[in-house]
Amino acid sequence: MNLILLFQDDFQEYKGRVRLQGRRLDHVLKVHRAIVGDELSVGELNGRIGTGRIIALSQSVLEMDVKLDRLPPSKLPLTVILALPRPKFLKRVLRSASSMGVQRIILLNSFRVEKSYWQTPFLSHDRLREQLLLGLEQAGDTVLPEVLLKPLFKPFVEDELPGIAAGTVSLVAHPTAVHSCPRGVNQPTILAIGPEGGFIPYEITKLVACGFQPVRISDRVLSVETAVPALIARLF
Amino acid sequence: MNLILLFQDDFQEYKGRVRLQGRRLDHVLKVHRAIVGDELSVGELNGRIGTGRIIALSQSVLEMDVKLDRLPPSKLPLTVILALPRPKFLKRVLRSASSMGVQRIILLNSFRVEKSYWQTPFLSHDRLREQLLLGLEQAGDTVLPEVLLKPLFKPFVEDELPGIAAGTVSLVAHPTAVHSCPRGVNQPTILAIGPEGGFIPYEITKLVACGFQPVRISDRVLSVETAVPALIARLF
Repeated sequence: MNLILLFQDDFQEYKGRVRLQGRRLDHVLKVHRAIVGDELSVGELNGRIGTGRIIALSQSVLEMDVKLDRLPPSKLPLTVILALPRPKFLKRVLRSASSMGVQRIILLNSFRVEKSYWQTPFLSHDRLREQLLLGLEQAGDTVLPEVLLKPLFKPFVEDELPGIAAGTVSLVAHPTAVHSCPRGVNQPTILAIGPEGGFIPYEITKLVACGFQPVRISDRVLSVETAVPALIARLF
Repeated sequence: MNLILLFQDDFQEYKGRVRLQGRRLDHVLKVHRAIVGDELSVGELNGRIGTGRIIALSQSVLEMDVKLDRLPPSKLPLTVILALPRPKFLKRVLRSASSMGVQRIILLNSFRVEKSYWQTPFLSHDRLREQLLLGLEQAGDTVLPEVLLKPLFKPFVEDELPGIAAGTVSLVAHPTAVHSCPRGVNQPTILAIGPEGGFIPYEITKLVACGFQPVRISDRVLSVETAVPALIARLF
């Protein structure tokens, strides 16, 4: 937690004072080992970042006077389309994508995605949000990425994707692609990443028809939790 | 497991036949759902890769005739020096570094490394090797990276590092560095990555004195498990 995220309910009668309990209080006590007078990095959800000066601190409550005077780091102009990974990887990938500043994450079905993955409780709004917030706290950001669930491949790719992909650099990571993933693109980009075992040829064909170029990052097969940060760092 | 690693003891009386049990057998039964006659990707530890044709398969044993006729993917000419991460991150970082083809991993002490991390059973030879092998199986590689443990920062950096770093691009990832991490270096490189909270100024000074240039990958603070694949993908 390199930044303590503040929510609307934390703010007291006048805007500059916050009162925190629970997980964030525990973290300040046990990890920061902070004392009254210390200044901590804080940020308001979807808002500015700054510092919080500790006014009161006990086992039950933390009070800070906060000054939010800076913009959070800018987002990458990047949408990641991810064939829904198994739940244990999903959590880590959401955290790392959120920490790296991905703007939008689309979780998509694919032939090789196990059907049961769509039943996991981790896809609930609150559980997704929890992982995204952890990524923001890690990175010092405040702006939640958007997450969309698309459990049907064909209608998404045929009806919605052309609009989303228009005007972007559209890439699909594919281990057998001829072209290497470009470096330092720094333009609006959509990156599609397949499931374990990869997208099937039909899916690649549909993505190519939508303007996606297959690219590879390595002659090695990387797990999704390694591939996501690797591809993002290659592109931006 | 995109490649089944074979060890000396697996080979039967004549070199082309292997007999497997345990974890690899389970994986072939449950994940590959293979049957007699199927061909699987295999590789001999620190040797060639190829295919194994299933000759016999039961709940207790898998026999294959193997043909090892290709070289594994080449290693990156990269040494990663890592301030020892907490055990749960260490495992993942070892797997991802191994899967990405890092040649050598040096686990180093640093002021902000918790002393208790050096006591973890995960630092035993066998436990380290287990994670590295998982990374190789993921990537389709056979060649184990070298792992060195350096629990004393100063003597390592003063006495050993100059020899190791000579003739390489030497970089230390540092969130406040002025220079961005270079892209596509493709030369022998050493990359040092600090602990949570970063290397302290004294440590940065010692590394700089050894020829290391501080570089940053982002204006965001990334966790070590995200930073390692991101930095490697930026460099190679």
